[in-house]
Amino acid sequence: MQSTEDRPVTTAEERSPYWSPRTARARFRAGLTGPTAGVAAGHTQANLIAVPADWAYEMLLFCQRNPKPCPVLDVTDAGSPTTVLAEGADLRTDLPRYRVWQDGELVDEPTDVRAYWRDDLVAFLIGCSFTFEWGLVRAGVPIRHVEQGRNVPMYITDRPCRPAGRLSGPMVVSMRPVPPRRLGAAIKESSLLPAVHGGPVHCGDPAGLGIADLGRPDFGDPVTVEEGEIPVFWACGVTPQAAVMASRPPFALTHAPGQMFLTDARDEQYRLVGID
Amino acid sequence: MQSTEDRPVTTAEERSPYWSPRTARARFRAGLTGPTAGVAAGHTQANLIAVPADWAYEMLLFCQRNPKPCPVLDVTDAGSPTTVLAEGADLRTDLPRYRVWQDGELVDEPTDVRAYWRDDLVAFLIGCSFTFEWGLVRAGVPIRHVEQGRNVPMYITDRPCRPAGRLSGPMVVSMRPVPPRRLGAAIKESSLLPAVHGGPVHCGDPAGLGIADLGRPDFGDPVTVEEGEIPVFWACGVTPQAAVMASRPPFALTHAPGQMFLTDARDEQYRLVGID
Repeated sequence: MQSTEDRPVTTAEERSPYWSPRTARARFRAGLTGPTAGVAAGHTQANLIAVPADWAYEMLLFCQRNPKPCPVLDVTDAGSPTTVLAEGADLRTDLPRYRVWQDGELVDEPTDVRAYWRDDLVAFLIGCSFTFEWGLVRAGVPIRHVEQGRNVPMYITDRPCRPAGRLSGPMVVSMRPVPPRRLGAAIKESSLLPAVHGGPVHCGDPAGLGIADLGRPDFGDPVTVEEGEIPVFWACGVTPQAAVMASRPPFALTHAPGQMFLTDARDEQYRLVGID
Repeated sequence: MQSTEDRPVTTAEERSPYWSPRTARARFRAGLTGPTAGVAAGHTQANLIAVPADWAYEMLLFCQRNPKPCPVLDVTDAGSPTTVLAEGADLRTDLPRYRVWQDGELVDEPTDVRAYWRDDLVAFLIGCSFTFEWGLVRAGVPIRHVEQGRNVPMYITDRPCRPAGRLSGPMVVSMRPVPPRRLGAAIKESSLLPAVHGGPVHCGDPAGLGIADLGRPDFGDPVTVEEGEIPVFWACGVTPQAAVMASRPPFALTHAPGQMFLTDARDEQYRLVGID
């Protein structure tokens, strides 16, 4: 589904873990595109989906009913492109790349959606697994897609989400290869952050999720799975896009998969506390 | 605010931790009333608030914006008194006691709300801290209100919730006295269950939440705080009722504080996994 046009137009070296979220948003606003994995270390990244107000209740309910793929971090007031999660940010310009959907069909992938914005749009910011990659790194888990300068691989699974009104669709997952000796740490680290998908939904054989070929992701790029590594699958915030594709609301705006919104929130804010 | 009429009409001994949720619901349907703390060990209890469909989006958004007091476990389809959380249950009859609200005023406290039910009502089931009391007991924390055969004390705090459209109001908390040597365990046990309010919002001096007198709770009954014990405050699912009182929607149905809905869900389903 993704083509080479979604490959980074800049190299991984040009995007930095040392950027503040504000700097990252400014660079993306100025036209920089590409995956945001590895950018602005320790800051929470978010998926974006904006729908017309008459679809907002069903989208919020869809998220409530499917909290693993759709953990809601913020919901904007209708028409407002601002969020409490990032001071001074404009959701219409500050992501690297967007997708525009009409009747469930992808019609454009601009770097700015001001021309598409509507006064009745309600935007949902949904947790992203890029957030816990810093914890994985600290736990000794390689982040293969960052190592390889690629977008994380994402797959449409055979697991249906629980529908909400007119919205239904399959769960989407992201995949990271994990050495068996690091599997416990990877599960623990991600489980501590349920607001960004929490622990994995599946480990091992991709067929367990109805995924036929790890080498052909539905979104993003394939990555190398080394001998002995276990593919580990986390629920993914691209799931609402799959619901848009399946349920065909008249209009929706989303981020381009892997090209997220950088919030000012720190991962620690979402980390469970009081646990040894 | 609570009077003696809300004291248990049966003794604690007449309600049993050994009941299945189905048995508990049948007893309450048959007319038994009183607090549900200590009933149906290991099963998830839920707060109820039902509002007309044209308030449902704001209620769901209010819950999303205030996840500590309002962790949503299920949302029903408009008019339906059933939930995926309890097979064969009827939300109109299966709670011990209800509250009926008109324009933000409490107008009735029946044991059955079939006469008040409307086809446009959307019911929200919200996690309840009674759920993690079993974990507290295992961790050596006394559950004073159960020991004393009373309803848990609940207090309206000076902490405002984040508003959602027409809905706003203060956070409500429940209080349990905890011996200092058990405080770590109490925090850990409850933190593992974020779907039922998670870790406490405050420990110690009640003035930190604007609570003037622990002996005069806004809902439920006072309990004894022994010498040296620390009052520990958890966010409470009565918070939506405080929002109803403050925001005055034309109509709402809720449970009576402390008299919860017993679901078939087991606490383990909501417990974070993969954490040492």
